[in-house]
Amino acid sequence: MTRTLFHGLCAFPMTPADAEGHVEASAFAGIIERLVTADVDSIGLLGSTGIYAYLTREERRRAIRTASDITGGRIPLMVGVGALRTDSAVSLARDAAEEGADALFMAPVAYTPLTEAEIYQHYATVAGATSLPFCIYNNPSTTGFVFTGSLLSRLATVPNIRAVKMPLPANVSVETELSDLRAKSAGAIAIGYSGDWGTADAMLAGADAFYSVAGGILPREMLRMIRAAQSGDEVEVRRIDRSFQALWALFREFGSLRVVYVIARQMGLCDVAPPLPVLPLRDDAHTRIRDAVEEITAIAG
Amino acid sequence: MTRTLFHGLCAFPMTPADAEGHVEASAFAGIIERLVTADVDSIGLLGSTGIYAYLTREERRRAIRTASDITGGRIPLMVGVGALRTDSAVSLARDAAEEGADALFMAPVAYTPLTEAEIYQHYATVAGATSLPFCIYNNPSTTGFVFTGSLLSRLATVPNIRAVKMPLPANVSVETELSDLRAKSAGAIAIGYSGDWGTADAMLAGADAFYSVAGGILPREMLRMIRAAQSGDEVEVRRIDRSFQALWALFREFGSLRVVYVIARQMGLCDVAPPLPVLPLRDDAHTRIRDAVEEITAIAG
Repeated sequence: MTRTLFHGLCAFPMTPADAEGHVEASAFAGIIERLVTADVDSIGLLGSTGIYAYLTREERRRAIRTASDITGGRIPLMVGVGALRTDSAVSLARDAAEEGADALFMAPVAYTPLTEAEIYQHYATVAGATSLPFCIYNNPSTTGFVFTGSLLSRLATVPNIRAVKMPLPANVSVETELSDLRAKSAGAIAIGYSGDWGTADAMLAGADAFYSVAGGILPREMLRMIRAAQSGDEVEVRRIDRSFQALWALFREFGSLRVVYVIARQMGLCDVAPPLPVLPLRDDAHTRIRDAVEEITAIAG
Repeated sequence: MTRTLFHGLCAFPMTPADAEGHVEASAFAGIIERLVTADVDSIGLLGSTGIYAYLTREERRRAIRTASDITGGRIPLMVGVGALRTDSAVSLARDAAEEGADALFMAPVAYTPLTEAEIYQHYATVAGATSLPFCIYNNPSTTGFVFTGSLLSRLATVPNIRAVKMPLPANVSVETELSDLRAKSAGAIAIGYSGDWGTADAMLAGADAFYSVAGGILPREMLRMIRAAQSGDEVEVRRIDRSFQALWALFREFGSLRVVYVIARQMGLCDVAPPLPVLPLRDDAHTRIRDAVEEITAIAG
C-alpha cells in the first residue's frame, strides 16, 4: 500500500467543523468515503484545506480516528502535524501514529521568524518522534517561510524524511526545478507539488505527486487527470485541465479553502462555514462555483 | 492612570516559561516588579517578546494574574489576545479583562491569508467582546499582514479601538506617516511605533508611544530616552541612543527575542530558554550582548 505514498494523487479533504471547532464526524466520514471510492493514491488529512491550524489537539485526533476507521488501511493516510511549538508538533505526531496515520507532513508554521538552523532542528525532532515516513510541507503562502535548496538537501538526509510538497515555482519551469531538487537530494526524497492550477504542468513534467485541494472534493475527476499524466497522454491531460480552468480562476480569486466550502455545501456533503475569521463567500460567488464544477463533471464524467 | 495608556513608554517584558510552556511565576513577578520600580508608562504583557503565541490560554491567564498582582493598579497593563480563531481571541480578551487588564492589543495572526473584510470583522468582534480600550498590533514581521491606510481608518471607527502600534515605515519618514495616519483616523487613535532601533527618531517625530522590547528589560534606561524625547531634548535623546547602538545591532542580527533571553539570564532575572523551535543564542553572542548592555547602563546610569 505504501508504494502509493508520496506518488500520484494525494487528495486533501476539508475537515467539516462547527462554529466552536468541533469536527462533524459523520460529514467528515462521508467526505473520506468518496476518496476511498474514487481510489485516490493517498489522503492528506489535516492540511491547510483540512484547517489543521484551527483545530485543537483533541479534535485533530478525532478527525484522524474518523478517517482511519473509514479507510481501514485501503488508502494511505498522510496526516498534518504542524504546530508553533516543537513539543506540540511531537505530541501531534505521536497522536497521529497511534490513530493509524501511515505518514506525516508538516509546514514550518512560525510566529517568531525562524532561522534555517531552527527549522532544521524542528523537522529533525518531529520527524524523529515516530517511525512514520515524513513529508516537508513547503507552503510559503501560509507560512511565509521559503526553503532554500541547501536547507532542503540537508533535510533530505534526516532518516524519516522521504518527500517534499513544493509550491509551484515562480521563475523556472517545474522540469528545471525537479532536476535541480533531485540532484540536491540525491534522489532520496519524492518530490510533489501543490497549487492546483499547476497540476497538469507539474505532472506532465514528471513530478512524483500532486497534493491537491480539488482532489479532496472532486477526486474522480482529478484522478483522471493524474492518471492521464502518468501514462503520458498529454492531449487527455490538457482536455481535462481545460474543464478545470474556471475552478482554478475561482481558487486564485478567493483562495481554494473558501471555494471548497461552497462546493461541499452544493454537493450536500456538509453545511458548515470555514473557521472565523475566515468568512464564507458571498452568494454572488456561488453561481460561478456551481457552473465551474458542472463544467468539470460534464467533460470528465 | 489610563492617561498614560498608549502614550510614552510601553514596556514589553518577556514571559519566562519552562520547556513545557509553564510560566515561571516568581521570575515573571520579578521582571514586572522592575517595570513598576522604573515607573514605565504602561506594560505590554504577552506581546511577541512575551511569547503569547506559544502559551496556552491557561498559562496566558496565569501570566496576567501574576502581573496584575504585582502592579496592583499602579501601571496600566495592556494584554495581547491574538489567536488564529476569532472565538479563541474573544475568550482570551474576556480572560484578560477578568484578570485585571486595563487595555488589550492584538496582532492579525493568520494561517489562511485573510482579506481586509476578514481582518476588520475579526478586530470588531474581539474589540467588542469587552469594554477595554484596544490597540491594533500592526506587526508584519511576525504576521505577514500589511494594514493599508484605508483599513486602519475603517478600524479607527470601531468604538473600543483607541491606538495602533505601527512598524517603522520603510519608505517615508515617521513624521510623514504620522501626519498621514492622523488625518486618516481623524485623530481618533493614538499612534505609536515599535522596532527598537527607531525609538529616538519615532519619539522625536512626535509618536504618541513607543512599544519597546528594550523597555521590558532595561526600563530605566529606555524611559530616560523617552522622557528626553517628550521634553524635546534631542541632544540627550541622541546621546542615550548612541549607547544603545550595539544592542540595536544585536536585535537586528538575532531578533530581539533571542537577545532578551540572554540579557535576562545575565541579569539573574531568570534562566530559561525561548520556546523551541526558537533556539537559544550560541555562547559567542553572549559576550557581545553583555558588552552592549554595559555600554547602555554606563552612559545612561
